Amino acid sequence: MTTQYDLQGVFQRVRDTHPLVHNITNAVTINDCANILLACGASPIMADDPDDAPEITAICNALVINIGTLNRLSIPAMYAAASRAGELGHPIVLDPVGAGASTIRTVTAKRLLAEHPVTIVRGNVSEIRALAAGDTAARGVDAALADAVTPENLSATAAWARAFAASVHAVVVLSGAIDLIADATRACAVYNGHPKMSSITGTGCQLTALTGAFVAASPSTPFEAAVAATCAMGAAGQIAFARLVPGDGNSTYRNKIIDAIDHMAPDDLARLARCEPVA
Amino acid sequence: MTTQYDLQGVFQRVRDTHPLVHNITNAVTINDCANILLACGASPIMADDPDDAPEITAICNALVINIGTLNRLSIPAMYAAASRAGELGHPIVLDPVGAGASTIRTVTAKRLLAEHPVTIVRGNVSEIRALAAGDTAARGVDAALADAVTPENLSATAAWARAFAASVHAVVVLSGAIDLIADATRACAVYNGHPKMSSITGTGCQLTALTGAFVAASPSTPFEAAVAATCAMGAAGQIAFARLVPGDGNSTYRNKIIDAIDHMAPDDLARLARCEPVA
Amino acid sequence: MTTQYDLQGVFQRVRDTHPLVHNITNAVTINDCANILLACGASPIMADDPDDAPEITAICNALVINIGTLNRLSIPAMYAAASRAGELGHPIVLDPVGAGASTIRTVTAKRLLAEHPVTIVRGNVSEIRALAAGDTAARGVDAALADAVTPENLSATAAWARAFAASVHAVVVLSGAIDLIADATRACAVYNGHPKMSSITGTGCQLTALTGAFVAASPSTPFEAAVAATCAMGAAGQIAFARLVPGDGNSTYRNKIIDAIDHMAPDDLARLARCEPVA
Repeated sequence: MTTQYDLQGVFQRVRDTHPLVHNITNAVTINDCANILLACGASPIMADDPDDAPEITAICNALVINIGTLNRLSIPAMYAAASRAGELGHPIVLDPVGAGASTIRTVTAKRLLAEHPVTIVRGNVSEIRALAAGDTAARGVDAALADAVTPENLSATAAWARAFAASVHAVVVLSGAIDLIADATRACAVYNGHPKMSSITGTGCQLTALTGAFVAASPSTPFEAAVAATCAMGAAGQIAFARLVPGDGNSTYRNKIIDAIDHMAPDDLARLARCEPVA
Repeated sequence: MTTQYDLQGVFQRVRDTHPLVHNITNAVTINDCANILLACGASPIMADDPDDAPEITAICNALVINIGTLNRLSIPAMYAAASRAGELGHPIVLDPVGAGASTIRTVTAKRLLAEHPVTIVRGNVSEIRALAAGDTAARGVDAALADAVTPENLSATAAWARAFAASVHAVVVLSGAIDLIADATRACAVYNGHPKMSSITGTGCQLTALTGAFVAASPSTPFEAAVAATCAMGAAGQIAFARLVPGDGNSTYRNKIIDAIDHMAPDDLARLARCEPVA
Repeated sequence: MTTQYDLQGVFQRVRDTHPLVHNITNAVTINDCANILLACGASPIMADDPDDAPEITAICNALVINIGTLNRLSIPAMYAAASRAGELGHPIVLDPVGAGASTIRTVTAKRLLAEHPVTIVRGNVSEIRALAAGDTAARGVDAALADAVTPENLSATAAWARAFAASVHAVVVLSGAIDLIADATRACAVYNGHPKMSSITGTGCQLTALTGAFVAASPSTPFEAAVAATCAMGAAGQIAFARLVPGDGNSTYRNKIIDAIDHMAPDDLARLARCEPVA
């Protein structure tokens, strides 16, 4: 499967420019997010206090906001950092973890998306659906967002994702067995990854962090950055699975996925990526 | 060593029903707790803000409260979530990390135990002793709680644990070289585990999380759920130790313990469990 | 390379006395810090709430403050714990993560250093430089603090570090490809370590934690404790690198470094340490 996207170039720019990525993220996977950022060639900084976050954002190349364990201190930090990133024109990547599962998660994610220039939003179907609820532009195609992206509903889901992306002025990454990346006019399906990845906490968070690094290095092409990060994460899951020995389980698999990113060369990504446009 | 408890059935229900477990836990071992929950077949959700926790509790099958790094935000979240879990009849598992080491830890753990329907409380001897201090019902047998559970004091300690369990209306898990599980009328000693487990941070926290998954799937038999989780954790420690290669230390051992849970089948647990009733 | 310092004795005291180390640290590397403390023979306690931290400090043998993800709750906890540690004469180790990168980080680290009897401060060149900015005693030699410690500037940097150490009444550890440890009258260069260590988040934080354990066991010789911890961490990085197999990356390397500390005997440290006084 060849691709029309310059995935190798996107990854090469991460390796060449070592972007600094500010993460306001959850306590569960914060260490894994930092290590996968280092593995891809970026540098992580974590800062989630309202007094600290805006200044840290200002010295970084991108801001990643993950609401996985949001709280009364980190929520104002998210807004303050997003404001600063917006003023400075830095890419913002949003991971609406658990949107739809509680009011504060849904409200915070929707407000970030509505009031700040989020560049890329990445989540699973239920999270993205929660963001779209009540959205006038997306409502019309709401029924098209199935519970999982399948070959059968791929085209309809892509139409929904393009409409939602247009509505929120962001690239949308819909993660699942088939990943779907969409902006207002295009969509791409990614077939990398391995089912075992869902047995680890935070492979989604790690993809979001990786996406932050990729778009930090290629801020003018967020769609391609998101496709490249999604392919890289999925390919790492495949490489790591092949390296498991009998008795290895989800914890070792977690380490080996990050290891695979550490070893992945940009031309490996180009060779391993399995993605194609969706009409 | 055969057992009268249906440990295989308890574990099988976790694998079959994939319970959702809400964790309000410490920052140190939160990632390991999430991964061991996934390893056993459950799904973890972490939420420790007072505005978020009660709603998350409501969509889960059990609540695990671990006070290892409690703070001014998470303490009210613990109370709010425990109230909601109590209203909904969800099992609550409490890990009183460091009770006895500071006032706020002791007070918070005792208040949770006194004011909420905690189903299972799991800790080491000094933590459980701190919870029992001042407890009228337990005071009479206080002297019977030795610093460590040994074959010599097993029967006396079991009597103490049954009395304390009756007093707090909860199953008590006393972790140590020999683990002791008690409710008001029964006690069980578990001989699984490996001394090397104490060289890793959070094997206790992980056992508490695992116990949350097991009781979520078997809410009507919390004693058996606690015995099964304790045996599973200890057996994982033995399996993982056998898989260490020269040079492997505590960090790799941590990964291999979680891996062992990931690979453990319910009939493995039945075969490996070393537990017996204590009169 | 032989050494005049009793590194073996310092490490042996950690293994013999199992010091209890209170950590107020960042959310990113808190688990690794706990596991490396266990690996070296110490016991970690993490507590970062203002109501909890001073009492926990009181029962420990040393206090480690790492400001990597400082916030409105943990900052007052840092001050309160440092006050208590000062009253009790416990060693305090400070890691000014990100000092210079934001106002709150710089101000908090400088205030801790100015108002509390910090025993050892460990950071990279830019962090230590941020602490020294505006410092009258250090200003005179400010120009001597190069961006990296090299064989060429070693002597001049050591002079700067001695002056800064005298000014802040603390041992200073300047981490980099060559590490430099200084007190008011002496300096020592450490040549252990491996470049791959910089691809992992938190090797600096782990060194700070390890330093806390070493000075807890040898509170009257903080300079030697800092040299021993720095050599041990670097040697672990070398041992772990040699144990990597093809495909292993930064995540597995992280585990193997902690494993190497777990396996390191005090006489291994004496044999592997590469350090020498700097005139």
